[in-house]
Amino acid sequence: MHDTTDQHLFERVLQDNDQLADENRHHFDDMGAYVVNFMSAPGAGKTTLILELAKRLKDKLSVSVIEGDMVGDLDAERLRTAGVSAFQISTGRSCHLDAAMIARLLHATPHPEGQMIIIENVGNLVCPAEFPLGEHLRIVLLSVTEGDDKPIKYPVIFHNCDAVVLTKTDLIDHVDFNFETVEKTVKALNPKVELFKVSTKNGDGLDEFLAWLEARHSITLTASAV
Amino acid sequence: MHDTTDQHLFERVLQDNDQLADENRHHFDDMGAYVVNFMSAPGAGKTTLILELAKRLKDKLSVSVIEGDMVGDLDAERLRTAGVSAFQISTGRSCHLDAAMIARLLHATPHPEGQMIIIENVGNLVCPAEFPLGEHLRIVLLSVTEGDDKPIKYPVIFHNCDAVVLTKTDLIDHVDFNFETVEKTVKALNPKVELFKVSTKNGDGLDEFLAWLEARHSITLTASAV
Repeated sequence: MHDTTDQHLFERVLQDNDQLADENRHHFDDMGAYVVNFMSAPGAGKTTLILELAKRLKDKLSVSVIEGDMVGDLDAERLRTAGVSAFQISTGRSCHLDAAMIARLLHATPHPEGQMIIIENVGNLVCPAEFPLGEHLRIVLLSVTEGDDKPIKYPVIFHNCDAVVLTKTDLIDHVDFNFETVEKTVKALNPKVELFKVSTKNGDGLDEFLAWLEARHSITLTASAV
Repeated sequence: MHDTTDQHLFERVLQDNDQLADENRHHFDDMGAYVVNFMSAPGAGKTTLILELAKRLKDKLSVSVIEGDMVGDLDAERLRTAGVSAFQISTGRSCHLDAAMIARLLHATPHPEGQMIIIENVGNLVCPAEFPLGEHLRIVLLSVTEGDDKPIKYPVIFHNCDAVVLTKTDLIDHVDFNFETVEKTVKALNPKVELFKVSTKNGDGLDEFLAWLEARHSITLTASAV
């Protein structure tokens, strides 16, 4: 929607969002909450992965989940059924969460609380990359069923994240997907990125990803305490 | 990006797009070109399906393909290698094609020509739904690996199309995906929609989809001739 005539306006929207994201970040830090933003195309398995993480983390940490969807609260209900505290944001016609939506939720009653807040963004590999929410960590999921060319075609989101989780690895024998190709492309875009291979179906790789997430949380807690 | 404050502007952008889409439609009709817009999430298999269709159609009809991607021309090159006439539009930061991008290409040298022009939109289940391009037919792909809840979560695009093609059906035994659930949801959103099940890997369903596409093309040719 941002033709050259609308370029200036789009830049203003991004600047406003960045400022609100900074305010959210302070808010999260004051709450003592570590915030992780999960992004991917529709159907890469964000909700299922978040459900697994929340279940495994909840005995160690207090966890809330924020679900972003155009309409409905299917995913939030799915989490609540599993005993996870979940809050729904309906984005309507917007193809991503923005910092203002998160700010409004943080000032609502009730609002997400806990030592870790997990955000599930709208399924989209383009716009969520340009709209930070105040999160501490940005994770991009890529399902092996989507093809190994996606980091080339959607470079911004893979450049602008802390980790890439390759999901549905149980299907690897049935699809054309080369892990080395993806690793090479993603590392060229983003040399410091961490890569994980995960299947929520057979549990492969979940422990490694969870250990990394907990380690990052501890680093932030220590840094905040100094 | 369209917060309430930007709602008015967003409506203006959509109106401008609708007007340009109408102009494109007249342009296509004057050219005698039947235009089909393919939309889906990233990795649902648009390029592979389009490649199959273009190869099978090109002995009967003259066909051009317009590829929309944020960056690069991977998909256009893939089509050209197979002998298909292909034109790339780079959308940059935009998460969808718009009517202005198509209009510019139609006035460029060289530009797409032929009795059928196939457009591959940017991989995104949200915004392409609200930006008509002047096409005669709108097709949405949904891969069985994405999950059968997608029409509930992204209703606008499934409401606003002529056919839904369920792709990668060769993987059906390895995923949780219920055809009846999807058919029920999609038909509730869009009673007149056609549904197809296709695998480009084993060829299942391709003949049926192609026959429907050719029939629609003939209907339009006949209607134009009257």
